[in-house]
Amino acid sequence: KGGKILVLPGDHIGPEVVAEALKVLDIVEEATGARFERDFDLCGGASLDKHGDSVTEAVLTRCQQVDAVFFGSAGGPEWGHSQPNPESGLLRIRDRMQIFANLRPCFFASQSLVDRSPIKPGIIKGVNFTIIRENCGGAYFGKKIEESDYGCDPWAYERSEIERVARVAGAVAMQQEPPMPVWSVDKANVLANSRVWRRIVHEVFEKEFPKVKLQDQLADSLAMLFITKPTAFNGIIVTDNTFGDILSDESGGLTGSLGLLPSASLAGPPAARGQQPGLGRNNAGGVTGLYEPVHGSAPDISGKGLANPVAQVLSLAMMLRYSFNMHHEAEMIEEAVKKVLDSKADGGLEVRTGDLGGKAGTREMSEAIQAEVRRL
Amino acid sequence: KGGKILVLPGDHIGPEVVAEALKVLDIVEEATGARFERDFDLCGGASLDKHGDSVTEAVLTRCQQVDAVFFGSAGGPEWGHSQPNPESGLLRIRDRMQIFANLRPCFFASQSLVDRSPIKPGIIKGVNFTIIRENCGGAYFGKKIEESDYGCDPWAYERSEIERVARVAGAVAMQQEPPMPVWSVDKANVLANSRVWRRIVHEVFEKEFPKVKLQDQLADSLAMLFITKPTAFNGIIVTDNTFGDILSDESGGLTGSLGLLPSASLAGPPAARGQQPGLGRNNAGGVTGLYEPVHGSAPDISGKGLANPVAQVLSLAMMLRYSFNMHHEAEMIEEAVKKVLDSKADGGLEVRTGDLGGKAGTREMSEAIQAEVRRL
Ligand SMILES: CC(C)[C@H](C(=O)O)[C@@H](O)C(=O)O
Ligand SMILES: CC(C)[C@H](C(=O)O)[C@@H](O)C(=O)O
Repeated sequence: KGGKILVLPGDHIGPEVVAEALKVLDIVEEATGARFERDFDLCGGASLDKHGDSVTEAVLTRCQQVDAVFFGSAGGPEWGHSQPNPESGLLRIRDRMQIFANLRPCFFASQSLVDRSPIKPGIIKGVNFTIIRENCGGAYFGKKIEESDYGCDPWAYERSEIERVARVAGAVAMQQEPPMPVWSVDKANVLANSRVWRRIVHEVFEKEFPKVKLQDQLADSLAMLFITKPTAFNGIIVTDNTFGDILSDESGGLTGSLGLLPSASLAGPPAARGQQPGLGRNNAGGVTGLYEPVHGSAPDISGKGLANPVAQVLSLAMMLRYSFNMHHEAEMIEEAVKKVLDSKADGGLEVRTGDLGGKAGTREMSEAIQAEVRRL
Repeated sequence: KGGKILVLPGDHIGPEVVAEALKVLDIVEEATGARFERDFDLCGGASLDKHGDSVTEAVLTRCQQVDAVFFGSAGGPEWGHSQPNPESGLLRIRDRMQIFANLRPCFFASQSLVDRSPIKPGIIKGVNFTIIRENCGGAYFGKKIEESDYGCDPWAYERSEIERVARVAGAVAMQQEPPMPVWSVDKANVLANSRVWRRIVHEVFEKEFPKVKLQDQLADSLAMLFITKPTAFNGIIVTDNTFGDILSDESGGLTGSLGLLPSASLAGPPAARGQQPGLGRNNAGGVTGLYEPVHGSAPDISGKGLANPVAQVLSLAMMLRYSFNMHHEAEMIEEAVKKVLDSKADGGLEVRTGDLGGKAGTREMSEAIQAEVRRL
C-alpha cells in the first residue's frame, strides 16, 4: 500500500500548508502501514529563482514517474514580469502528465460555513456540485501566435480530447446510486468547437452511460444561474478549459471559503470502489493525478503562519482516494476536517483561521485536524 | 431632432416589451418635438419562420442606414434545432453594423431592489459598474472550422480592434469627473491574444487617457471577486468578447433583477455631453448603436402580458443618450423608472411585475412609467 509522490510546494503559502498536510499523511502511514515515498522539488517562482525556468525538464520527467504530484501554489508579485511566468510551470506539468480532467468540487465542508457565503443562506445552502474542467486542451494549449499587433489562440478540440473527459464525467456521476445528473457546458450557439463538444459528449453518454441524465447548458447563462439558483446544478458539470477556469473560480466565490476548496487533476476516469482504473492507471493501482488547493499563493499572508491548511488537506484526501484507491482514509480525513469546522456548532472550542473569521494560525488548525484524524 | 430607427422586436416577449417601450418614445416625441421615423422588421425565430434565415440581407442593409436599431430579443425552444439558429441573426447584425462596444451596466435601478439580490445586502449594496464587452471579434467571429471530429474557433485580436474598444472604455470613464477607474480584464498569464490585448490597452490609455486609472484584472479571479467584493469594481470594466459574455451574464445574476438591465452596442465612443462623436457617428449627431435588454426572450412567460418592460425602456433611454445625444430625455426616463420602482418605499402604490415579486402586468408597469415620464 502506498506509492511514490512528488511534492511541489511552490511559492508563498504553498510550502506552509503543504508541510501541514504532509503531517496528516504521516498519520495515515502510521495507522495503515502504507508507505509514501516523497520527493520534493521546485515549481513556479521558486524554480524561476533557482533555474531560470518555471519548471525544469528533470521535474517534468519526475512528474511522469510518480503515482501522484502533491502541489501547493505557484506565483507572486515578485515574478510579475518574469518570462516565462511562474504559472506556466503548472500548465507544462498538466500537459506533460496529461492530467486532462480537473475536478473542482463546490460544497460546504461544514454546515457551519453556510453563513460565511456572500450568497443568502436560503439560496446557497445545500450546494454540492463538482466541475470537471478539461485541463489539457482548448484555447489554453496549442500553437499560439503573439506578434506586436496580433495575438491568436486557437480554441480547438478534437474527438479524443472530448471523449476522454466526458468519460471522466460519466464515471464520477456513476459513483452514486442513482447516478448524479451531468450538465455539459458550452457555447454551442456561437462556437464551432462547442458544437463538436456537445455532439461528442452526447455520443459518449448515450453509448457508455445510458443511465446518466445529461443536459446541455450554455456557459454564459450558467454564470448567472450559479448565483441565482446554485443548487439547481447539484451533480456534475463537465466543460472545456476556458469555461471551466472561469466557472470554477466563480464557484469558489459562491461558498465564500476559497481556503477550503481542494482540486484533483486526473489522467483518467477514477475507478469505482474496489475496481481498478483503466486509462491513466499508475503503479499504485489508482489514477495518476496532481492535487492542489483552488486558492493561490496568497503573498499577502505568506510567512506569517496564517494560511488556512484545509484546502491542502482536502487535496490530500482526494489524492488518497483517486491515486491510491484509499477511499476509507480519504473519508476519515474529510470527516476530521468537518469535525474541526463544526466544533463551534458542537459547543466545542472554535479553531478557525482568519479567512473563516477565527484567530487560529496554520499550525493550530492543522493540529486540530491531526488530532481528529488520529481519533478516527 | 430625432432620426431613423429600425425596430426589431424579435421573438416571444420581445414584441411585448418593445411595444411598451415605444409608447415612452411617443411621449418623448410629444414633449420635445423630436421625430423618430420607425421601420419594423424581423430578426431571429420570426425571420427564420418567414424567410428561412435568422436575418435577411435586406434587414442587414437597413441596419446600416438607420441611426439606431431598437432590438427586443431573439430565440426560443421552437427553433432549438434550426440551422442557422435564431441567435445568429444578432451576431450578423453586430458584425455588419460594426457595433464593437457592448455596454452592460450593473447597478440597482432603485435602492428598493437591493434586497432582491441573491447576494447579501451588505456586500452588493452600492454596486455600480459597466462592462464594456468587445462585440465584433475574438473567438465569436472569424473563420471557424467544424468537422465531425474537430472544431476550432480562432481566438484572435488585432491592434485596431483592441484600440477602438479601449477608446470607448476611456471615453466612458471620462464622462465623470474625476474619471472612473478602468479594469482591463484578460487572461494574459495563459493566452497570447490577452497579452497583446493588455499591452495595447495600456498604450491607448497612456497616450490618450493619462488621467484615467487603468488596472489589469484576470478574468477567472474576477468571476470570483464579482461575488465576494462586487463594489470593488465600481467603474468601467473593458474586456474581450468571450470574457465579456460570461462576466456580464454573471453580473446580471448579482443584482438578481435581469429584467431590469439594459444594454447598448456602439459603433464608436460616446460623445461627451454637448460634443459631437467621431468614429461611428450617425446622421442624428450621435453614435450608431443597437439597444437591447440583457434578458432573453423568456418563452415561459411570453404571450401572457407578464414580462417586465423596464430593461427595454432603459435600453430606450440609452438609445436616446448615445445615438441621439438626448441626454436630458434619457435621464428623465431613468428617473421615471426609478420613481416607479421606488413607489412602495415612498408609501405609494407598488407597481411591480412578477420577476420583482409583484402582481402587475407588462401594460400596468409600462403605464406607471409613462405617467411618470409625462410628469417630469
Ligand atoms: C494559474 C493558471 C495558469 C491556472 C489556469 O488558468 O489554469 C489557474 O487559474 C487555475 O485555474 O488553475
Ligand atoms: C445570443 C448570443 C449569441 C449572445 C452572445 O453570446 O453574444 C448573447 O449571449 C449575448 O450575450 O448577447
